[in-house]
Order: sequence, then structure tokens, then C-alpha cells
Amino acid sequence: MTPDDIQFAERLADAAREAIRPHFRQGVQPDRKADASPVTIADRAAEEAMRALLRAERPDDGVHGEEFGVTEGTSGRQWVLDPIDGTTAFLAGRATFGTLIALLEGGFPVLGIIDQPILSERWLGVAGRETTFNGAPVSTRRCRELSDAALATTGAHYFSEDEGHHFMALASKTDHKRMIMGGDCYNYAMVAHGQLDVVCEAGLKLHDFAALVPVVEGAGGTMCDWQGDPLHAGSDGRVLAMGDPARLEDVLEALAG
Amino acid sequence: MTPDDIQFAERLADAAREAIRPHFRQGVQPDRKADASPVTIADRAAEEAMRALLRAERPDDGVHGEEFGVTEGTSGRQWVLDPIDGTTAFLAGRATFGTLIALLEGGFPVLGIIDQPILSERWLGVAGRETTFNGAPVSTRRCRELSDAALATTGAHYFSEDEGHHFMALASKTDHKRMIMGGDCYNYAMVAHGQLDVVCEAGLKLHDFAALVPVVEGAGGTMCDWQGDPLHAGSDGRVLAMGDPARLEDVLEALAG
Repeated sequence: MTPDDIQFAERLADAAREAIRPHFRQGVQPDRKADASPVTIADRAAEEAMRALLRAERPDDGVHGEEFGVTEGTSGRQWVLDPIDGTTAFLAGRATFGTLIALLEGGFPVLGIIDQPILSERWLGVAGRETTFNGAPVSTRRCRELSDAALATTGAHYFSEDEGHHFMALASKTDHKRMIMGGDCYNYAMVAHGQLDVVCEAGLKLHDFAALVPVVEGAGGTMCDWQGDPLHAGSDGRVLAMGDPARLEDVLEALAG
Repeated sequence: MTPDDIQFAERLADAAREAIRPHFRQGVQPDRKADASPVTIADRAAEEAMRALLRAERPDDGVHGEEFGVTEGTSGRQWVLDPIDGTTAFLAGRATFGTLIALLEGGFPVLGIIDQPILSERWLGVAGRETTFNGAPVSTRRCRELSDAALATTGAHYFSEDEGHHFMALASKTDHKRMIMGGDCYNYAMVAHGQLDVVCEAGLKLHDFAALVPVVEGAGGTMCDWQGDPLHAGSDGRVLAMGDPARLEDVLEALAG
């Protein structure tokens, strides 16, 4: 990864913003994917805009996008794109969705962007550097006890029954009155921003979590799967984010139930 | 209610904005209320700012605020205030909370404001008038079939077990893939704005729902309790909002299970 890659990633995010903004709260009708989840003209337009830049300027890199699948590259590098993470929030008029852009080297994310197109909010994470929010450094907050932790998840209905039991076991050890639902990628941005302590989710795809890792970790937090192992292209989609790495063992123990 | 009341209500919302904005994402630590739910300096400062205006300019009206209780009036009118509906969202750095201001006459809300202080978004509903968003009319959308409906609720953990069963019975008849969690008052603003079809919640207090009714109904929607009865000061806190009143019977039937 080079400084030029960082600038280029920001240009991808700019292009997605421009593609998404005209469609927000404009009565966009969703189509359905094979799993019946909604997708819109805004998702497709944003991924197309990013892919056009990648074709023109990074022809040797692979591309893995939520809407248009995998384009193999020859460089060993892969750009992972989720044009709208939180299409349901987008469709509900709630500006908590985000464009996710990750650069993977050897299957591990080394650069990540979470971009909120409507609010012009951008979190940028780069391996070995401090995460920034609109250019200024941000950091996670300390969490002295798991019982003080504010926990977030996008929705209990995204868990299998077994996953739901584990989530509830974790939730019961956190500050239940501060638990918050909804949010998609925005919850991870808020961990990086020092506003939330723990996010716990399951069923995430590579395009859902790859960009989050450099953002959260560059802000001082940690991300892993439900076993505590690092996230990579082959992870099972069960994802944890913690603002305070000192709470990792507590979270894993609580989640095991 | 007079045109002057509408201007005055907007000034209340302006005062709450000014009190809340300096505290957003600034590391505010919550205190706990008797039920352990969080409250912050921003909640208290916003309600105090509104109460100061009410004392000065509406001394004969009653005031019912979430944080500082009930002040009886002599006019038969009552201002119902929730300085931050969605304190958990406020604490999580998510700009989907809102300031709620209602004017009740004879126990029924005749004016309501949902104000998002960070995004400068304001929905104003007045009995017998079109609801406005930042001054421009907005309207709910049609929903031809309940199976097409996008449903929202702030969190399944706010339901009792029995209420949860009824909610799930309703959810199973809607477009499950578009169901969205979180949102507090913002979901009702999005119904008024034509972005969501149904909101279903329980356990709401008068200050949580009074302001929502004129906003949703002035945009063409309908609100009621889980029996289909109008909401008023004595309602039991089980609340429904629908963008398309033609779906009311379907929703009540599905909710009955």
C-alpha cells in the first residue's frame, strides 16, 4: 500500500457519495436479491462508479463488490466494496448507512473507509496509522468493566437462534439500558469515535466487515471473530468490535455463555 | 391554539437545539433514573431551556416534561416535552434522537414537533394542517399490501414477552427484509416523510408519543393504540403509526396474532 492508494480510496468514496446522494429519500423502489434482501439503483450506481475508477486506475488489482461480484486481479491486492451497507436504513430515510471500501493484501484488510454520504462523514483507517474522522484523529474510549459497556447490534433478527442465545448472554453482562439496535457499519464508526464500546454481529460477509477492521483498530480498538481470531477473507461472519482491547477476554467469555 | 402558539413551539425547539448541540459526541457521562435508564446534562439543559421560555411566556399553561415532571396550569392547555427522545442514540453518537414538543388541549395533542438538533431537521404537525419538514409539506406514502410494508421499532428488548409475541405476529406479515430496528422518534418522522410504513412500539410514555400524533396525522397517516383507539393522555403506551390509514385493519388483525 502506498500514500497514493489512500488518496485513491478517498476518490472511490467521493464517487460513491456523488452516486448515492441524489437518491436519498426520493422514493427509490428496491429490487430483490436471491436472498430477498433489498437492493436499489443507488447501491448499483455507487458500485459502478467505484468500479469504473478501479478499471481505469487499478487494472491489476482484484475487485470484490457486494452487487457485482468478484473480478480477479493479478497484483495480489483486492478492493472490497459495499456501496451501501445498510440498504434498509437507506430505504428508511435514516442516514446511518455507509459506503465501505477496503484494500486487502494477502487476504487481510490494510485500509478501510466508512463513508456516510448524506452527512459527509468519513472514517479512514490505515494499518499502522491513526484512524481519522474527516481528517482529524479519533480514538476509542476505555471501558473499565463489561457491565459499563454500551453494546450495539443491527438487529436481533439477523441472528440464528443459537447465535441469538450467545448474543443475549453477552448483552446480559453489559449495560442493558444503553444497548442500541440498528446502525449497520455506523456502529463500528461510533466505536472508533469513542461513542460505543462493543458491537456484536453475525452473518456478515467480507464486504460488510473488511473496511471496519482498519478503522476500529487504528482508533485503538480491536476486532475479531467470536473465537477471538483475526478477521480475514475466510472468516465465518461472526464479528466483534471492542473499543477497549482490555475487555476482549470478558466479551469472549460472556458470549460463550 | 393560535398561530402564535406555532411560532412559540418552534422557539422552544430552537432553544432545545442550542442546549443539546454542544454536548453531542463530547464524552457526556449519563446518570441513571429510577428505572436505570440513562439521562444526561443535555436532556436536563434542553428541558430547562424550554421550561424557562414557558414560565416567561405561557405562565398559565401546564407543563409535563420527561425530566422535571408536571407543573399544573390553569388554562386547560398542557405542553408535553421530551428534550431528548432516544438518549441511548444520543449517547451512541447517532443523530437519530429528537426533541419532542406537544401542545395538548383537553388531553389530546393538537400540535407536535419532532426536531433533530444535529441535522437541523424539523417536522411540525398541527391539527387540521399539512405536516411540514423544515417548512415544506411532506406526506406519507401509500402501502397497497401489508406484505409490502417496511416496519420499524426501536428495539425488541423494549417489549414484554407477551408484547413481543404480538409484535412478531405483525412482523411476520410485513416485508421482513426491510424491518429496521433503532430509531426512537425518528421512525415516526420517517413515516410522515413517506420513508417507512408502520411503527409498532410499547411502553411509551405520554412525552414519547404526544408530539408524534399531529406530525404523522398531518402527513396523511394515522396513529392509535394497539386496539385502534386514538392516543391521549391516558393511553397505555402501546403505540402504532401507519403511513397509509387503509392498512389499519390489516395491522390490527396481524398484531392480534
